[in-house]
Amino acid sequence: MAPQDTGTEGHTEPHGKVTITEIARQAGVSVPTVSRVVNGRSDVSPATRARVEELLRLHGYRKRPPAVTTRSAALLDLVFNDLGSPWAVEIIRGVEEVAHQAGVGTVVSAIHGRSGDAREWMRNLRARASDGVILVTSALDPTLHEQLRILGVPLVVVDPTGTYADGVPVIGAANWSGGLAATEHLLALGHRRIGLIAGPPRLLCSRARYDGYRAALEAAGVPVDESLVVPGDFQSESGFTGCNALLDLPDPPTAVFAASDRMALGAVEALRRRGLRVPEEVSVVGFDDLPEVRWSAPPLTTVRQPLADMGKLAVRTVLRLAHDEHPDAPRVELGTELVVRSSTAPPARS
Amino acid sequence: MAPQDTGTEGHTEPHGKVTITEIARQAGVSVPTVSRVVNGRSDVSPATRARVEELLRLHGYRKRPPAVTTRSAALLDLVFNDLGSPWAVEIIRGVEEVAHQAGVGTVVSAIHGRSGDAREWMRNLRARASDGVILVTSALDPTLHEQLRILGVPLVVVDPTGTYADGVPVIGAANWSGGLAATEHLLALGHRRIGLIAGPPRLLCSRARYDGYRAALEAAGVPVDESLVVPGDFQSESGFTGCNALLDLPDPPTAVFAASDRMALGAVEALRRRGLRVPEEVSVVGFDDLPEVRWSAPPLTTVRQPLADMGKLAVRTVLRLAHDEHPDAPRVELGTELVVRSSTAPPARS
Repeated sequence: MAPQDTGTEGHTEPHGKVTITEIARQAGVSVPTVSRVVNGRSDVSPATRARVEELLRLHGYRKRPPAVTTRSAALLDLVFNDLGSPWAVEIIRGVEEVAHQAGVGTVVSAIHGRSGDAREWMRNLRARASDGVILVTSALDPTLHEQLRILGVPLVVVDPTGTYADGVPVIGAANWSGGLAATEHLLALGHRRIGLIAGPPRLLCSRARYDGYRAALEAAGVPVDESLVVPGDFQSESGFTGCNALLDLPDPPTAVFAASDRMALGAVEALRRRGLRVPEEVSVVGFDDLPEVRWSAPPLTTVRQPLADMGKLAVRTVLRLAHDEHPDAPRVELGTELVVRSSTAPPARS
Repeated sequence: MAPQDTGTEGHTEPHGKVTITEIARQAGVSVPTVSRVVNGRSDVSPATRARVEELLRLHGYRKRPPAVTTRSAALLDLVFNDLGSPWAVEIIRGVEEVAHQAGVGTVVSAIHGRSGDAREWMRNLRARASDGVILVTSALDPTLHEQLRILGVPLVVVDPTGTYADGVPVIGAANWSGGLAATEHLLALGHRRIGLIAGPPRLLCSRARYDGYRAALEAAGVPVDESLVVPGDFQSESGFTGCNALLDLPDPPTAVFAASDRMALGAVEALRRRGLRVPEEVSVVGFDDLPEVRWSAPPLTTVRQPLADMGKLAVRTVLRLAHDEHPDAPRVELGTELVVRSSTAPPARS
C-alpha cells in the first residue's frame, strides 16, 4: 500500500508568523474573539468560529508555548473513543510502558464520540499543557485535529481499523495479510467451504481482511462463493447471528473465519447451541488475539494484532514529533501473526 | 464488618508546624539531607533515610504545596501493579468517567511490583504535581505510602482482593456476600455436591468468598466436605487444574464455584476436554463478571464485582481528601450481585 501524502499542513513546520491582530482584521472581528477561538472557548458563534479557524488554518497559525511552566514532567494524552473497546487495555499497556521509560505520564481519556466530551477534553488538554496526543479511533474529528494543529500539539493516530487520516501519522495493522493467513490455514487443513463473517464495510480493515480471504481462496483455486460471506459489526452478537445464517445454508461451510475475536466467540456459542462441536465438526478462526481467547472453550485459533506494539510505536512517534523530527513514514502497518490453538482441525468426513 | 480505625496519622490534618531544620537537628544530619529525603532523592543512605522518615512521621510533617503553578488543570494518578489484570480496564472506565466530569485528567501507570518502577513513578508524580493517587493493588508498599503522606498527596486504595491498609481509605467489594449468593444459587437448583476452586489463601477476599460458600452450605444443612475445596490463584490455568482434581474424585461434584471468572473459564475448558457438557452435566459459577464472560461458551453465571463503580467512588473519595474533607468511612465495600446466565442448571439425574 503506498504511503499517503502528508500534505502541506506541516505539524513540524516552524511557528507561523501571522499575528492574531492580522487574523482579526481579515475576519472582521475583534482580537479577543480570535483569542477565544484559539483558546477553544465556547462563547463564539459557530459561523464566526468557522471563519476564524479557516483563516488560522490558511495562515498556518500556531499558538506559542507558554513562556514559563513549573510542571517539569512531560505528559501525553491517550484518547479513546470508548474504553469499552476490547483493544483498549492492550494499547494502554504498550503506551504506558514506553512513556514510563521516557519519564512521561500517560493521561487516559474517553470522548465517547460526543462533541461535548471532546470539547471538555480539549479544554483540559490545554490547561495541563499536553506534550502530545495519541488518538485511538477509526473516525478522526476534523475540528479536533485542527485545534490540536493550532495549539502545536503533535498528534498520532492508532487505528486498528485502518482508516486514513489526512496529514496525520497513522499506526495500523497488516489486515490484508492477516485475512490471507487465516484463510490459508483453513485451506491447508483441507477445508474448501470456508465462511466469512466480515466486519463493517465502511471500515477499510474489513475490506482488507475480506480481500485477504479472497486472495487465499483464489490462490488455492477455490472459487469464491458470495453466499458464504455474511456481514457483522465486530461484536459477539453479530458473530452469533452471522454463524447461524451460515449454518442455515443448504450447503453450510465446514469452517468459519470471523473478522474479529468477539464475532468468533459469538460463532462458537451459536455452534454450541446447535450441538456442533468445535473443531471436530466446524472450525473457527478469529482476528485480534484478545487475552480472553486463550481460555475460551476451546482456546481460539486467531490472527494476532500487535496492539501493545502499536501503542509503543505511537509513543515513539509522538515524542519524535514533539522534538520537531519527522516520523519514519506517515503510515505504518505492523505485521499480524497467525496463532494456532484448538478451534481448528481438518474437516469432518461427510 | 466493622470499619477500621483510621489511626492518628491524619491525611486531612492541617500542615504540620515542624520545620526541616528541627528535623535535621533531631536526626543529627544536615538540612540538605532532610530535604533530599523529603524530595525522594536516592543519594541518602538507607539508615539515614529511615531515621529521618521516622521523625517526619512522628511530627506529622507535610510538604507545603508550591506557591505558584501554571498548570491549571487537576491531575490524578491511577496506579496499577499490572495493567494485565482483568480488572484494569473496568476500573479505568469508572475512574475516567468521574474524573472527566470533574475536569480532572487521569494519569494511568503500572509499577509491576518493581521498586525501581515505583521510585521512577514517584519522581514523575512529584514533577507533575499530582492532586491525588488511586492505587489498585492488594499489596501496599509502606514506603510509597509514607512518601505520599509526606508530600501531602491524598491516597485511596481500590482493592478488589480485600487486603487492609493502615490509615488509608480502601474501597473493596462484598466478597463474603458474593460467595454466599453463588453457592445459594447452586443449592436452589438442587446441587448438594458443590466444589470450590478457591483463591490464594493469603488474600482476604479468598477467605471471604470461601466463608460465604461455607455459610450457604451450613444454612442449607449440607455438610461441608473439605475434599471438594481445591486451591487456585485466580488464573485460568489453576481453574483448569483445580477442576480436573475435582473430577478425579471418587464422588465428583455436580457443580463448581470458581472464585474468579478466569478460573471458571479454565474449569469450563477442563470439562469440555473430558466431553462433559456445561451446564447439562456439570454447572459452573464464576466471580467478577468480566466483559468477556457474557460470550463464553456457554455464557457464564457469575458474581458481579462493581469494578467501574469502585473506580468512581475512589475518585470522589480522593477529591474529598484533596479538599481536606474526611471520607465517608475508612473502608467501603460495594455490593456484589449474582448474574445468572447459561452455565448453571439443575444437576443431571444420576
